[in-house]
Amino acid sequence: MAANRQRSRRSGATAPGESGRLAAWSDSDLAAQHRVPAGGKGFHLRDIDPRDKRALSDRAKAEAAMAVDIARIDSLQDKLYAEHRRALLCVFQAMDCGGKDGTIKKVFGPAHPLGLIVTNFKRPTVTELAQDYLWRIHKAMPGRGMIGLFNRSHYEDVLAVRVHKLVPAADVERRYDQINAFEKHLTENGVTILKFYLHISKAEQRRRLQERIDDPTKRWKFDPADVAERKHWHKYMAAYQIALERCSTPWAPRYVIPADRNWNRNAVVARIVRSTLDDLDPKYPKPDFVPSKVVVK
Amino acid sequence: MAANRQRSRRSGATAPGESGRLAAWSDSDLAAQHRVPAGGKGFHLRDIDPRDKRALSDRAKAEAAMAVDIARIDSLQDKLYAEHRRALLCVFQAMDCGGKDGTIKKVFGPAHPLGLIVTNFKRPTVTELAQDYLWRIHKAMPGRGMIGLFNRSHYEDVLAVRVHKLVPAADVERRYDQINAFEKHLTENGVTILKFYLHISKAEQRRRLQERIDDPTKRWKFDPADVAERKHWHKYMAAYQIALERCSTPWAPRYVIPADRNWNRNAVVARIVRSTLDDLDPKYPKPDFVPSKVVVK
Repeated sequence: MAANRQRSRRSGATAPGESGRLAAWSDSDLAAQHRVPAGGKGFHLRDIDPRDKRALSDRAKAEAAMAVDIARIDSLQDKLYAEHRRALLCVFQAMDCGGKDGTIKKVFGPAHPLGLIVTNFKRPTVTELAQDYLWRIHKAMPGRGMIGLFNRSHYEDVLAVRVHKLVPAADVERRYDQINAFEKHLTENGVTILKFYLHISKAEQRRRLQERIDDPTKRWKFDPADVAERKHWHKYMAAYQIALERCSTPWAPRYVIPADRNWNRNAVVARIVRSTLDDLDPKYPKPDFVPSKVVVK
Repeated sequence: MAANRQRSRRSGATAPGESGRLAAWSDSDLAAQHRVPAGGKGFHLRDIDPRDKRALSDRAKAEAAMAVDIARIDSLQDKLYAEHRRALLCVFQAMDCGGKDGTIKKVFGPAHPLGLIVTNFKRPTVTELAQDYLWRIHKAMPGRGMIGLFNRSHYEDVLAVRVHKLVPAADVERRYDQINAFEKHLTENGVTILKFYLHISKAEQRRRLQERIDDPTKRWKFDPADVAERKHWHKYMAAYQIALERCSTPWAPRYVIPADRNWNRNAVVARIVRSTLDDLDPKYPKPDFVPSKVVVK
């Protein structure tokens, strides 16, 4: 664990793409390669290839590594829960069909349901719309010891909301700093935040939408409105670029995960989660009793 | 599926213990063997051996059957979620160390986190105590398409509350019918309810408490108050007997699961959950669009 954490500190400065293929297999290099630099300096979403495999060119190897990572997440989750001091929040954003549901299932399915709190943010309800946009987000925050998973999030309030001009532009402009301040507050109060943007190509979205139409077991996921929404692809990419630039902070890093290949997407997310939990290094709490003095009759 | 449902109806009348070992391997016989008869007629908790294995005498066979059941739960959960019409609620009660956490992890760990809502009922908060005891229970109910898991439940309000005389006896007496009425309301509104009492022996609890004291990775689960609580074992068994008698209803069946052996406990719960979902027979909804007419550009 100590060795891991040292590696993490050393490689924290590695810019995406700098390190070689083999090096990237270490816990933190892989994370660094997918991390948007704080402030988004020099970051352009159009430079990221959704089919990019980075270090994970070998599928079998990626799946084997992922199995190890998931077992490790399981054991670290137990400690995080036992410690009851801090929380981990994983935020998933993506275009329709980007793989949010699938990632949650594959990476966190094997974890302990008691330690997970999953929130599926849909169109805000009338009650939620009567509040500021972060109200429902704050309510859904994982408590001490928990891992929270957000399927969509407050980022819709600067993505869909921006694309469809649902609030005045000046209000949207203020939100990026508001979100950064909110996330800073959370991290200063024990919540570690990982933000994942699962990046698929427009062609891959087409393929997946068509699959949802053709496959009777997937048809329920298809909403004809998704086809209309697809026409705004470029506006969404522009909105993502702004959000990724302005809301990539040292306290709440944003990761862009090439997601055209599910196995690459899952393995990279699992590695980043595992590496973050390794760095958190949760510990079983010291007992508030003297074990040798307790007698169970 | 149709065959399953017929078997279920036929064997619904089978009293615990009536059917032979082999027959019990069918979906519904195993459920029937563990079900408390509606109204608790002739049921005595003291007759149930916590080490009883019923039909599952062979551990390897039980684990293999469980793997199949869990895969089936996974696929049925997908349909339940897609259908978005009904919900399943599984209530877990047990004495300390009875295995509630472990059962939830083993049976539902592989399920999709997005379709699960897990609630850990602890000592009521000040806010919760300012409401009637079913208020927090209703709030935690799984919505359409969801599987809800209760780790402890409103049954504590007739168990711990009864044992420790936390409310007047006359109030406790009224609660059994209130709970039955509440559960009837839920089932009439689309929630299928399964109530599991994981039954361990006092000797097994002792072994497990000692293990929590001795094993540094389990020590955080130990509360010295558990040793004091153990002194009330017989009062708890009496309170369980009453609750099992009075709250075993045709609409919300109660299952007593011999739980001294984890593998038996997990396999039986998995089978009952799977069999219940099979009977619910959820279906992917019909699309509200004509698949052949949708063009994704």
